[in-house]
Parts: sequence; C-alpha cells; structure tokens
Amino acid sequence: MKGIDFPKDENLLVGFLHNEDAGIYRLTDDMAVVSTLDFFTPIIDDPFIYGEIAMANALSDLYAMGSKPITALNIIGYNQKLFPKEVISEILKGGSERLKESGAVLLGGHTIKDKEIFYGASVNGLINPRDIITNAGAKPGDLLILTKPLGTGIITTALKNKKIEIEDAMECIDQMRMLNNTASKIMLKHNAHSATDVTGFGLIGHAIEMADASDVSTVFYYDKIPKDSLAEELVKKGIYPGGSGENLEYFGRNCLISDDLSEAQRAVAFDVQTSGGLLISFAEEDAYNALNELYNNGITKATILGRILDKQEKTIIIER
Amino acid sequence: MKGIDFPKDENLLVGFLHNEDAGIYRLTDDMAVVSTLDFFTPIIDDPFIYGEIAMANALSDLYAMGSKPITALNIIGYNQKLFPKEVISEILKGGSERLKESGAVLLGGHTIKDKEIFYGASVNGLINPRDIITNAGAKPGDLLILTKPLGTGIITTALKNKKIEIEDAMECIDQMRMLNNTASKIMLKHNAHSATDVTGFGLIGHAIEMADASDVSTVFYYDKIPKDSLAEELVKKGIYPGGSGENLEYFGRNCLISDDLSEAQRAVAFDVQTSGGLLISFAEEDAYNALNELYNNGITKATILGRILDKQEKTIIIER
Repeated sequence: MKGIDFPKDENLLVGFLHNEDAGIYRLTDDMAVVSTLDFFTPIIDDPFIYGEIAMANALSDLYAMGSKPITALNIIGYNQKLFPKEVISEILKGGSERLKESGAVLLGGHTIKDKEIFYGASVNGLINPRDIITNAGAKPGDLLILTKPLGTGIITTALKNKKIEIEDAMECIDQMRMLNNTASKIMLKHNAHSATDVTGFGLIGHAIEMADASDVSTVFYYDKIPKDSLAEELVKKGIYPGGSGENLEYFGRNCLISDDLSEAQRAVAFDVQTSGGLLISFAEEDAYNALNELYNNGITKATILGRILDKQEKTIIIER
Repeated sequence: MKGIDFPKDENLLVGFLHNEDAGIYRLTDDMAVVSTLDFFTPIIDDPFIYGEIAMANALSDLYAMGSKPITALNIIGYNQKLFPKEVISEILKGGSERLKESGAVLLGGHTIKDKEIFYGASVNGLINPRDIITNAGAKPGDLLILTKPLGTGIITTALKNKKIEIEDAMECIDQMRMLNNTASKIMLKHNAHSATDVTGFGLIGHAIEMADASDVSTVFYYDKIPKDSLAEELVKKGIYPGGSGENLEYFGRNCLISDDLSEAQRAVAFDVQTSGGLLISFAEEDAYNALNELYNNGITKATILGRILDKQEKTIIIER
C-alpha cells in the first residue's frame, strides 16, 4: 500500500507483502506465532450455523500454513435495537463450538454497534518455523488436492434468494462449518510442498497466488474439481454471486480455458468461496497417500484435481 | 456468556472471564503471548489522526499489562462507493505511524464493505509470565496514578457538534494519539502492583473493575484528577456524550460521591474515554518516583489522584 512503511523485522517470517493466508512472527528458533483474522456479514439466516462457519473460516488460514490454533478473539458488529438478543448469542455459541473443536481458547473480543451484523475472529496459532507450509513451495510435477467442494457462493446466493430450501443447502453447509484441522494434519504428515485455503478469490484466484509465489503454472481438470451437486444447475438458472463474476473477469485474464467448458462450468470454477477447503500440492506418490488418508478420515469430497507445471505463458490452464 | 463453554487450558493465564484488558496464553515458562483487539467508528473527522488514535487505543491494552507489542492486523469497515479512496489510505497511514513507533510489525488485516467506516487492530505482545501486571494486584495504602487527562469523550463530542474548533481539541488529540509505551515501561520499572487502561467505562468504571478484582476500595480526589482544560466548561453547556451519562448511571451506584462535586464535575469523572491513560497502583514511595520519571519523559499530565483503601461498603469514594 502506497505511503505505508512496512517495517522490517528479522523475526517476521511471513508478512503483509507475501499474499499469504496469515502472518508469522518468530519467537524462538523453534517457535513462531501465526496470526490472522477474518469476519463477514451473514451468508446464511441460521445464526448458530453462521457462527460456526465464520469461526471455521477464520481458523482456516492457520490450518493452511500447518499451524495449531491456540487463542481467539471475537470480532462483532451488532445493534441490539435492530436484532433480537438471541441472534447474537446463537452466533457466539456457534463460533464457540467450532473453536472448542480446534482446541484453541477464547480470550475475549470486541463488539461495535453497527447497522449490519458481522462476525468473525482474530486467531493465533503456533508453529515450528521449520514446518511452515507456504503458498510458494509448489514444484512442477506436483499433484494438487482440494479438500472441500466448490460452490459455497452459488449455494448461499440461491438460499438467500429463496431458490432452494435449507435442506438442499445442507451438503454445502456441512462443508463450510467443517474445520480444516484434519486436512491440515494429513497435509503435514504427507510432506505437502505448498498450500493455501480457498476463500474469496475462489479456487482459481488462490491457485494463481500459489503459482505466482512458486514461479510455476497449474493445470486443472474441471471434471475432477470437487463441487456441490447443485452448483452447475443453479448457475444455469442464472444464480451465482456477483463476486464469482468478478473473479472470472479478473483472474480469467491469466487463464487458458478449454472451449469445452460451458459458461456454467466457468462460473463454478471461479466461484467465490467461504470457509473453503485447502488446496495442497504434493509430490505424486504423497498425493495418492494423502488422498487415501483424507477419505479414511471423513474428508470424502477431496479429489486430485490438477497438476503443477513448469511456468507457461498463462498461469492457469483449465481443461475438461 | 450463558450457553458458551469456556474451555479450560492450563496455559490460559488471563482469559475471558477476568475482566482484563487482554488475554494471555503461556508458550513457555518464561514467555507468553498477550492478545487483544479494538476498533470503532470515527471519533474525529481527520482520517490520519483517527487512524493514529485507533492504533494507540488498540495497543494500549498490551501496555496496560506490561507487554511489548510484536504484531498487528488491521480491522477495517469501509465502502469505496461512499467515501473517497484517500480517506482509507490516510486512516491506514495514521495507524501505521503509531504501530511503527510501538516497534510491532503489521502482518495484514481484513476489510468488509460497510455503510459506516470503522477501524482498529488486533494486536499481539510478548511478556514473561512473571512480569504480568493485572488489575487484581492493588493493595490498601497504594497510591494511584493516571497518565493521561480525562475528557476525550466530551471534547470529541464538542468537536463533532461543531461547538469547538480543531485547534481547541489539539490538547486532547495529542493525548489520544500518544502511545502508553513510555508509561508502561515506567510502571514496570517502579514495581507497579496493578494497572488497567482507561477507555469506554471511564476512569470510575475501570477503577471499579480494578477494585473488585483486587478486593479493595478506592478513593479519588476530584481536584487531583488530570482533565482536559475545556472539559468542565463544555459539560456546563450540556455537551457530553451519551456514554458518559450511562457510565454515571451504571457505575455511580457503586460510588459514594461527595456533595461538593457539581453535576459537571461528576460528568467529567465518569466521561467515556478513547485511548485513555494507564491507571496504575504503586506502593507510596514508588508512586512518587514513578510520577517524577513520567514528568521527565514528557508524560506531564500524569497525577497522583487517589489511594487504595481496605474494602468499604462502596467500591469507589470520590472527594473534592
């Protein structure tokens, strides 16, 4: 950002200018603190589920780097005159449930009076500096795994516009509130080269960040991409979020997309995600072992969906 | 909060239920991370100064506990369609200036689109668990020092309502954007027993928290309280924030206030503060030495304004 001085610090292992999921600050030779925060306005009417998703999403940046969450602070916008008291208490209960599952403890938080509700958390994790997984380590020949299906932007937009019922969205909701903790452990165990979590920029936006940081290109096979079973069908009816269109326009410039992909398929590939999965690059054999272990631990939507290439003219290639 | 499970963790040294300025999590025998966050809507039109104040305010909780800031993440609400781009860049520059002074590094942050602007930060500090200053250590006989004058709520309200010019507010503004870093160092050097920073609950609200946590009562001498030179005069004209009236009503119940205090003086004593000073309790001799050193380091508004007493019927006694 122009005009802002970014102080240098020898303990700053991952900072603002790295396009990374979280910042990392070294405390000792074998201990560093990983910090990140995220918060957003409700994407779903049920306040408890919204709280669960917001916390899973905030913690996800820690998991993407391979760190263990230790503490959290709530970030809340609310106006008790505009919304019933139960709403905020349900949101906080939902957040607290997911936080408990992560093993981190809630230290407190801050609320401001706002016309809109927003919720999220600032979270800290610990990591050994030697174990940090960044988005800069992908190597040509690596296989890519995505651990959750795409389509959260499309499904929540359909829900908001009453085009589907909550029951139709449960497949997507269960994925959004699932922590990336197990995926993170398996990624570490199988020597992942690189990882990021898939959120606002969508699969392709975050894949471009990874490819650029790693100085490689990436090919995705659309048919292998894990996606919500309703996603394509809803896009065909014209239902998808503005953010996904923006992603397609902005990130599409760096992509070579096969003519075999329909408009609807493109919209799914670029869909803006909330609390998305981890996109992880592994050496080929490790990828198969990791995928097997993900399956055996309930991460059954994960797929191998692409491969890291030597740097090409375009950063991302999307084939059928 | 009802219905929320607060997990116990042996490393949680200071947590949500302690009414403390920040949470503290032990990493090793001699290292703990201190975490806190704060953010609010603009209290002043100048975006750079607002950014400075918001960052000084967020860091203040770390200083109140005696910790050294290491990292920060920005928390931003903004709508580029409603406000010029320079506004947010000036806010961030102001925050960055104060952060640089603290020695901490910016790791990143998150922005949501909001109808109102808000800004603040989530910050981490380091501390040796043996050196933590809590609000629970005040001892009968201690003298109390406040390091910045009261009146920020009154002055910013007057400014917002165009009852004073920016020049009239500079005394207050310079105090709000001043970090509590020097005060914190001096507090540690002179063996402070207890400390808190004075913010939204005002001097009396935060003093009640300290007294309750320390199982003592406190007497304040109104004439000794450091206060902005315009504060009383403005209250006499009916200018003070709603929050200060709420503080007086809510916290006033726990106070025995001398009849010698005028209505205006009461409003000043209970004024809601932003980026206020540290309220510190010291053994008597340490208090005089600390005050002397504060003066010599430019904290010239600091005063000894009260004393810790054995627990009385009322938590706070306010005399002239």
